[in-house]
Amino acid sequence: MSVLVVGSIGLDTVKTPVEEHANLLGGSASYAAVSASFFAPVNLVGIVGEDFPTAHVEYLRSRKIDLEGLQTVPGKTFRWSGEYEWDLNIRHTRSIELNVFEHFTPTLPKSYATSPYVLLANIAPKLQSHVLDQMERPRFIIADTMDLWINIAREDLNALLPRVDMLILNDSEARQFTGETSLIRAGAKIRKLGPKFVAIKKGEHGCLLFGDNLFFSCPAYPLEDIHDPTGAGDTFAGGVAGYLASRNSDAVNFEGLRKAIVYGSVMASYNVEEFSLERLRKLETQDTESRYQSFKALSQFEVIA
Amino acid sequence: MSVLVVGSIGLDTVKTPVEEHANLLGGSASYAAVSASFFAPVNLVGIVGEDFPTAHVEYLRSRKIDLEGLQTVPGKTFRWSGEYEWDLNIRHTRSIELNVFEHFTPTLPKSYATSPYVLLANIAPKLQSHVLDQMERPRFIIADTMDLWINIAREDLNALLPRVDMLILNDSEARQFTGETSLIRAGAKIRKLGPKFVAIKKGEHGCLLFGDNLFFSCPAYPLEDIHDPTGAGDTFAGGVAGYLASRNSDAVNFEGLRKAIVYGSVMASYNVEEFSLERLRKLETQDTESRYQSFKALSQFEVIA
Repeated sequence: MSVLVVGSIGLDTVKTPVEEHANLLGGSASYAAVSASFFAPVNLVGIVGEDFPTAHVEYLRSRKIDLEGLQTVPGKTFRWSGEYEWDLNIRHTRSIELNVFEHFTPTLPKSYATSPYVLLANIAPKLQSHVLDQMERPRFIIADTMDLWINIAREDLNALLPRVDMLILNDSEARQFTGETSLIRAGAKIRKLGPKFVAIKKGEHGCLLFGDNLFFSCPAYPLEDIHDPTGAGDTFAGGVAGYLASRNSDAVNFEGLRKAIVYGSVMASYNVEEFSLERLRKLETQDTESRYQSFKALSQFEVIA
Repeated sequence: MSVLVVGSIGLDTVKTPVEEHANLLGGSASYAAVSASFFAPVNLVGIVGEDFPTAHVEYLRSRKIDLEGLQTVPGKTFRWSGEYEWDLNIRHTRSIELNVFEHFTPTLPKSYATSPYVLLANIAPKLQSHVLDQMERPRFIIADTMDLWINIAREDLNALLPRVDMLILNDSEARQFTGETSLIRAGAKIRKLGPKFVAIKKGEHGCLLFGDNLFFSCPAYPLEDIHDPTGAGDTFAGGVAGYLASRNSDAVNFEGLRKAIVYGSVMASYNVEEFSLERLRKLETQDTESRYQSFKALSQFEVIA
């Protein structure tokens, strides 16, 4: 089963206290699509300018990502520049150039309309809704979001939520969105706004999954060194969507979602080991399996197979 | 097998944004001993003044806690008063009256010297070492500590660490102690100072256990309402020590320690549901088993029995 991934595609300049790299492949859709491609065929919808390096296009193609939905238009590609403090949880945006992304309207090629799994990676909720308007009864829809949209487009986000099966957001966004300090309350409150499932990402503390009287706590992989947290959330979402699509089951149940959350965490844990998508470029499919087994070993306290 | 518990015994006044209660049974040893008593026989060493209510003594006795090591001396019992913000992670100490605790020297009754399991609940590391000086080859020694001792008694703490099997501390203390922002690095660094095992408590995010190339991530129980976080860490430590003692095995291994960490988390999760030790007063032994099963259900993603 295929996954439709819609989001931003950009060129990033990222600085940590240790290194700085410019013009890296970035954007929510790039990370999410590559991550999902380890599990299932991916249809990508996004926009780039004429300056977008052919090498990046070739890389996406090498991942068997369908690029019919990739619009290349006159102008410059979206650019983002950010800097991390020693505590890599703290990030400052240095500059944003929307460029061709400013007038992006995600238009789906006809063949994408029947994609059974949909990942609305982080873009404006209005655009996310616009994607769903073009879809024919997808089986499972995941939306990622961020603090920016909670601040400036809350109405659009509220309109989107009843239309998606799962919302993914991080802990501070969940608190901000609901006004609850308890993440347990926050997760329950967001579910009441529409999504059957809510995943709250907690960075170094892992991830919580909320369903109807169901709860799953996924640990984080214990990394001593994180080189670049950029794209961790997108990679996570891509892994979740990709794994679900690979299972090809009629219904997505909580048991399958747990495993999907773990595979998402597997992908995010690899991604932060190097800058941009460098680590995923080297990743083999069997690596995902071996780290999945590590997640089992570090979280299970009975019946350790 | 029995557990020796040494620590403070006090009368607490606790204020949250919702309620305030005065003269509650408190202190690290009270919480730890009662928690451990759900799993194993407990020998308690502590000090109280003549004002210490008989009802509290009777309650400890009703838990089958041996009180031969409880010193009752002229003067007033240790008192602590604290206030929590709406975010219950933030606590302010309003007042401390050391009273008889100021000159406490933990002196062990002869029969306690052979206790195979030892929990040095949170008191000055010098006193913790003094307890060990009186012991005959205990099987497993756990020490709890806090930021105060890291600040004012680091040398004493460094002297204690090679003598204990496991150190328990919370995430901010682990960062403060090691100067590492990464808890994974912090845990490894503390192990190099002596303890074979380190448990880092993360409150709402659960707990990490570090061993020799071994790592376990224990989730937190998802509570919507926490009424009083006081004593959560002590109850956790008591559950860990009590469960280990109950297993009565020749060697404490990482597998057993994982389960002990989960039982410690079970006890802490109950404890915060009400003020002081009120929740533990109502707790039945079978409750610990049912919540242990809940921990399994919320953290395991395969072979869910």
